[in-house]
Amino acid sequence: MSVTAPQGFRAAGVTAGLKASGKPDVALVVNDGPSHAVAAVFTSNRVQAAPVVWSRQVVTDGRVDAVILNSGGANACTGPEGFGDTHRTAEHVAEVLGISAGDVAVCSTGLIGERLPMDKLLAGVDAAAGALSADGGPEAAVAIMTTDSVPKNAVATGAGWTVGGMAKGAGMLAPGLATMLVVLTTDADVDPADLDAALRDATRVSFDRVDSDGCMSTNDTVLLLASGASGVRPDPAEFAAAVRTVCLDLALQLLHDAEGAAHDIAIEVVNAATEDEAVEVGRSVARSNLFKCAVFGNDPNWGRILAAVGTTSAAFDPNALDVSFNGVPVCRNGGVGESRDKVDLTGRQVNVVIDLKAGDATATVWTNDLTHDYVHENSAYST
Amino acid sequence: MSVTAPQGFRAAGVTAGLKASGKPDVALVVNDGPSHAVAAVFTSNRVQAAPVVWSRQVVTDGRVDAVILNSGGANACTGPEGFGDTHRTAEHVAEVLGISAGDVAVCSTGLIGERLPMDKLLAGVDAAAGALSADGGPEAAVAIMTTDSVPKNAVATGAGWTVGGMAKGAGMLAPGLATMLVVLTTDADVDPADLDAALRDATRVSFDRVDSDGCMSTNDTVLLLASGASGVRPDPAEFAAAVRTVCLDLALQLLHDAEGAAHDIAIEVVNAATEDEAVEVGRSVARSNLFKCAVFGNDPNWGRILAAVGTTSAAFDPNALDVSFNGVPVCRNGGVGESRDKVDLTGRQVNVVIDLKAGDATATVWTNDLTHDYVHENSAYST
Repeated sequence: MSVTAPQGFRAAGVTAGLKASGKPDVALVVNDGPSHAVAAVFTSNRVQAAPVVWSRQVVTDGRVDAVILNSGGANACTGPEGFGDTHRTAEHVAEVLGISAGDVAVCSTGLIGERLPMDKLLAGVDAAAGALSADGGPEAAVAIMTTDSVPKNAVATGAGWTVGGMAKGAGMLAPGLATMLVVLTTDADVDPADLDAALRDATRVSFDRVDSDGCMSTNDTVLLLASGASGVRPDPAEFAAAVRTVCLDLALQLLHDAEGAAHDIAIEVVNAATEDEAVEVGRSVARSNLFKCAVFGNDPNWGRILAAVGTTSAAFDPNALDVSFNGVPVCRNGGVGESRDKVDLTGRQVNVVIDLKAGDATATVWTNDLTHDYVHENSAYST
Repeated sequence: MSVTAPQGFRAAGVTAGLKASGKPDVALVVNDGPSHAVAAVFTSNRVQAAPVVWSRQVVTDGRVDAVILNSGGANACTGPEGFGDTHRTAEHVAEVLGISAGDVAVCSTGLIGERLPMDKLLAGVDAAAGALSADGGPEAAVAIMTTDSVPKNAVATGAGWTVGGMAKGAGMLAPGLATMLVVLTTDADVDPADLDAALRDATRVSFDRVDSDGCMSTNDTVLLLASGASGVRPDPAEFAAAVRTVCLDLALQLLHDAEGAAHDIAIEVVNAATEDEAVEVGRSVARSNLFKCAVFGNDPNWGRILAAVGTTSAAFDPNALDVSFNGVPVCRNGGVGESRDKVDLTGRQVNVVIDLKAGDATATVWTNDLTHDYVHENSAYST
């Protein structure tokens, strides 16, 4: 499974000593070809970490041979020196693997505003290169974890080809991506333009609709590498569906493991005038701290949902809104529906459906509740 | 002090039994004239409570004789029946006081989605009318409290005239106003147009810049009533300054008493290209749960500030941003500045200054930290 499930990839995860905990913190993923096609999506945050600035350049020619990833430091807001560190890391990977630095993508995650200990990192690159193996994906997935409690891997298969992926991210999850590093691989033979189309299509309805805490990272990166090692050129729609499956699987794993979450919440907005408006409404609810606290308290507080919906510019009549919690229509036509007492929110999964009665578009946004553990994890430690 | 500080006003606060706690829950403020000029600002939420829909109509002719306020129920999302309840309340006040129902503003606060117990409320109106007195302001301020821990009153004086005010609000504090009911009074002789100008000018830089938890209420109302009883027609600029003083005083009282807050945070954005951009940047930081958790943990986490600033469309160069916490420049030119260890955040007040170096406009947005008590108050009780 993971990024080494498709043919043509090797990976490794090692401990370089970047993390005080002594846990694995450097991962390397290598595409052995014959193809080296790539597509990528990066954070839309205007404050971008050095590795994002670097990798954005690297992918412009549609080719990536290797991805080096580290946890234990985001290398964000570190100035020209931090960019130099990223550049040096890529150069070192290129030297060790005998490839070009311009084909090495770099990803970092951890605390913002601190330089990386380069001696340890470069030694970690050597160790990772030495440990590369065709079943090293799961170890790579472990090495990119920060406050994640479990590694995240996913696989989907087509007729003779496979898509694999790993992800990390447990806080700062938000649209326009999360602090989220994702590497997807495939042995399908797909050119960069089709890869790009499949990736954008997939992230739009997966990572972009996961809004754990409304905060957007400086380091988010999703890379999709194609080796072509299967020799199969798949039907574009079939391939896109597989990429979407892996992305959504990973996105929901991220959400399920989000810092301090006690409930996974799916907010489905139906009968919106447009899909964009459905997303806007879903996101406004996903960002309401009052709503998120209510779910933590197992309270189907539809009033807080209406208050959030009311802040959007989506088409709807306030006196026509319906809201249900886990199938119970607690709000009908903007007013009191069935008794809140019929709703059981003690389970982990909460399904909210908001009916705007303004059209036929639909979208789902996923979020978490706001809990004591979230406050604890984000106040007791600097991340 | 409070709304009865200016001449020409009587007020009362009584217990009608709307609150399970048995605390005061109905307030009445009467303008005895000779003038009955009014200006008002209401929530910009598109889901509006019945009393907001009613009062919006009442103020259109620039005249209000009395304001009836209740806690213990928001009368929001209660459909045509809820609007009927508001109408009936105004009619009853008008009957008891011998005025027109069209000159009675109504304000409600409490749980969304439940009808008010009208028998208790109307009996409360009778009791409040019987208790009206020229020093009843402080009692009225107590009767509008919900999760507020203290009543909020403020006064400013001019040459022969006075502005008084009361406010409630302890959650859902956000721009475009908060769940916030505010009644301001003055014995200055000011016509509705000048009142309106003074009120909008004041709320723009006070209530509109308090963003406690990013949630916008369905019931927010700010009313400014002028009796003209002093016989003094003040200089408009002087009058506007007094209204601004009272509004800012009340806004900061609201923030200081916000649910579960352990720190009061002032986010001052300087050298922005425009005032709107300064507000946009301040608000994006005020809404970052990660930033707010960090402050709760006494952590001057400037990386979380830059990540929030990066989500805005304001003019700035990411490599030129400066951030200071309580006077210590922890971030310089988008990178590491002085040691975080020099910052002491153990006090209640936290001053953050963000220098965009993009112009000469400035704005301050006030918020709170995100704490265990916030989560507790908003998950353990339905509000």
